[in-house]
Amino acid sequence: MSMFREALQPFDKLPIYELLTEEGLEKIHQATMKVLQEGGIAFHDPEALKILKTNGAKVEGEMVYFGAEIIEEFVAKAPETFTQIARNPDRSVQIGGEAVTFAPVYGPPFAFDLENGRRSSTIQDFENFVKLAYLSPYIHHSGGTIVEPNDLPVNSRHLDMLLSHIVYSDKPFMGSVTSPQNAADSVEIVRRLFGAQAIQENPALLSLINVNSPRQFDETMLKALRVYAEARQAVIITPFIMAGSMAPITLAGALTQQNAEALAGIVYTQMVNPGAPVVYGSYLSTVDMKTGAPVFGSPESQVALYASAQIARYYKLPFRSGGTYTTSKLTDAQSAYEAMMTMIPTTLARVNFVLHAAGWLESGMTAGYEKFILDCDVLGMMQKFYKGIDLSEEEFGMDALFEVEPGGHYLGTDHTMRNFRTAFYQTDIMDYNDYTQWDMEGRKDSVQLANERVKDLLASYESPPLDEGKKDAVESFIARRKQELETN
Amino acid sequence: MSMFREALQPFDKLPIYELLTEEGLEKIHQATMKVLQEGGIAFHDPEALKILKTNGAKVEGEMVYFGAEIIEEFVAKAPETFTQIARNPDRSVQIGGEAVTFAPVYGPPFAFDLENGRRSSTIQDFENFVKLAYLSPYIHHSGGTIVEPNDLPVNSRHLDMLLSHIVYSDKPFMGSVTSPQNAADSVEIVRRLFGAQAIQENPALLSLINVNSPRQFDETMLKALRVYAEARQAVIITPFIMAGSMAPITLAGALTQQNAEALAGIVYTQMVNPGAPVVYGSYLSTVDMKTGAPVFGSPESQVALYASAQIARYYKLPFRSGGTYTTSKLTDAQSAYEAMMTMIPTTLARVNFVLHAAGWLESGMTAGYEKFILDCDVLGMMQKFYKGIDLSEEEFGMDALFEVEPGGHYLGTDHTMRNFRTAFYQTDIMDYNDYTQWDMEGRKDSVQLANERVKDLLASYESPPLDEGKKDAVESFIARRKQELETN
Repeated sequence: MSMFREALQPFDKLPIYELLTEEGLEKIHQATMKVLQEGGIAFHDPEALKILKTNGAKVEGEMVYFGAEIIEEFVAKAPETFTQIARNPDRSVQIGGEAVTFAPVYGPPFAFDLENGRRSSTIQDFENFVKLAYLSPYIHHSGGTIVEPNDLPVNSRHLDMLLSHIVYSDKPFMGSVTSPQNAADSVEIVRRLFGAQAIQENPALLSLINVNSPRQFDETMLKALRVYAEARQAVIITPFIMAGSMAPITLAGALTQQNAEALAGIVYTQMVNPGAPVVYGSYLSTVDMKTGAPVFGSPESQVALYASAQIARYYKLPFRSGGTYTTSKLTDAQSAYEAMMTMIPTTLARVNFVLHAAGWLESGMTAGYEKFILDCDVLGMMQKFYKGIDLSEEEFGMDALFEVEPGGHYLGTDHTMRNFRTAFYQTDIMDYNDYTQWDMEGRKDSVQLANERVKDLLASYESPPLDEGKKDAVESFIARRKQELETN
Repeated sequence: MSMFREALQPFDKLPIYELLTEEGLEKIHQATMKVLQEGGIAFHDPEALKILKTNGAKVEGEMVYFGAEIIEEFVAKAPETFTQIARNPDRSVQIGGEAVTFAPVYGPPFAFDLENGRRSSTIQDFENFVKLAYLSPYIHHSGGTIVEPNDLPVNSRHLDMLLSHIVYSDKPFMGSVTSPQNAADSVEIVRRLFGAQAIQENPALLSLINVNSPRQFDETMLKALRVYAEARQAVIITPFIMAGSMAPITLAGALTQQNAEALAGIVYTQMVNPGAPVVYGSYLSTVDMKTGAPVFGSPESQVALYASAQIARYYKLPFRSGGTYTTSKLTDAQSAYEAMMTMIPTTLARVNFVLHAAGWLESGMTAGYEKFILDCDVLGMMQKFYKGIDLSEEEFGMDALFEVEPGGHYLGTDHTMRNFRTAFYQTDIMDYNDYTQWDMEGRKDSVQLANERVKDLLASYESPPLDEGKKDAVESFIARRKQELETN
């Protein structure tokens, strides 16, 4: 593993903020076991029901009931950490343990930039975001559907998105889950890119399987999950929880339901293919009781995030959650307050895979260019934060402490000279000018500064080198598949 | 203690985020003792030097050297917690232990609002901020110089500010430190307001004694400190640290210097009057190596905040730090990212007294009306966060979990009905509308919304009742002092 790669993905050696006591964790575990055993989870897929039954779960119609022993047995088969490979080996990421991976926003049908406002997103937006994610040293993963390319045919746009990730970035990426066939296409593409052997050893895809909460998995997700698990590609099982509408309004209840749903999916994954890489996901927001709308950045979801991370660790599973969520429609103060209300707990809870780490606006409906840039700078700060505090002799700087007289100045000391390059995080976008200088430079707010940065970055972008043979292998498959899809 | 008061000031029962190991704490303590013993601290006040010498410190010229035993002996005399009384007893606050107190920004010479932009602040601004702080349920303290009333004479404006705190609010407040005479005036005013006996038992003032870092206390601060400590009023000893210019550029060194300075001031306070209430303060920012300007919200100051809080707890002292700092000139996304970069660590480190908790802009040069409103909403979220997670039976909501079918909805359940009023924090200002509704309502950003809220709040303001006799006693003193100051 090269130095560069080490520098890229942070490893969190800091203490974790543990909000729950061990007794509290045990209580949530026991309540979860009761829900799994007596309440059950619906699996809307005959093949899944067959697999679950064969492996010892109790099946009645589409309802599946799990005893605590089955949960324990199959959860134990899932790896505690795994590596997702990237086409640039230096960009491969560890998922789980002390490793942290930041990935862009996923799923918005709209894009926003200062000049054009909010509009239906296109493949051009998609490519732009792949490029911006590639260029940021604080984004370790190219993500999946960063924005929907609405100008492309629905049935084949997954192919265009995958090609975009492969051509415009060399970071790892996610597979399609919109149909089992799209999942199979994703697997075939990484097989051609990495080779069949390589993707058996380590997954080249990490894909998002959402639970259709409360307590059900739909057929598309279950079939996509099976495609990935059979090919030993990684999946994230994420209950889609809005406490108060899709789960109990109280946190203990919402966490219990989330845990039951996540464990049911994880256990099913291990029944499909024992040892297949799987991530415990949490996407837990609250509901505005006035409008019924989801609320991001609430104090309750902060608490839930700490607790969810602890619960995932209790089962020794890699954990996905967090990001820079906001309900705001603009990259205004609200958007940043809310983003941090999730992002700092994300850091202190040691979330392993952070989807939606940059660019999220409007409850996930919009990918914001300027927000992306600002969020990335914050991710850089978080990455510096993980370094914690060094208590070596040099860091105490006793030579400087004794050299500088009372009322004196440290700027010129040898100690400052030795350390100034690395002491502080260097912002890419925050404005530290004093009022006069800021006034002279045009009184720009952070959105204007970020808008300028977007243009500079896209203008400076150069593709990472890609082996022509591999590129051809991927492109010829995509061409064939597009032809088949047009014919059908 | 009434329910209302309990509801007002939060008590943090959550785990604290402890960043340093015990070994790390011990290392910083040892380095601090070396600085105090061999490096020394300058006290620019002959009377202070006399007191320090009498009490066993080694004095050479204006330099004072402290052995570890003297530090230990006098730090132990300081109370671990104390109560600062307010003229409404329900608003009295505990300082220290699990108690948390939020106070407004302190010191800016400018005010900002959306209509008028940034301008020299006036007594009208001062009164407005006292009123806004009074009206917020999440501000527990009226603060001190919220903004400078630049339209009033310098030599008597401390009297106008104190009167403003007393008349327009019933929350506790801070005393003047701009001269020993102004400190004495502050004490006389609270003596008239509360009675001589009451302020001997519990302080009615909490005042800000800054260290003129590195390693020196100036004469004004030392004389003001003595006035307060002799009258048994509380002081906060705060080293003014910009790591890289006023302290070593590395955190271990900056924390060591801060600790030496804070302990020297605390020990001196206890020599002046053993048992006098005193708070360990930290105001530790970093420096932008490009411009030399202070940087707020850096990852390094987050780390330092956690460590500083631990160090204060090591000495069993109440701790002041944190707030909603920003270097931004506007209430834009940057201002909110940076505010949260300090405010969340402030919460998780259990800072006891949070000065600058609302309204801070432009590295403390400006008090922002809209920022104040938005910050207060975030303080409300933090206050809700302190409640943590309740793992009682009702909170698990097993009735609802079993009642709602897979794919069903929790909104109509009995459990939701029983809990919806208290389950979630109710925002005062964040916009949770969907895009269409937000568009229909005029596409307002958070600054516009906050600006409207400022006007509504100030229009709705009513003074808390104040005993006429006490008011007269304060006003007659102020009138006399103003006459004396005019004559001089």
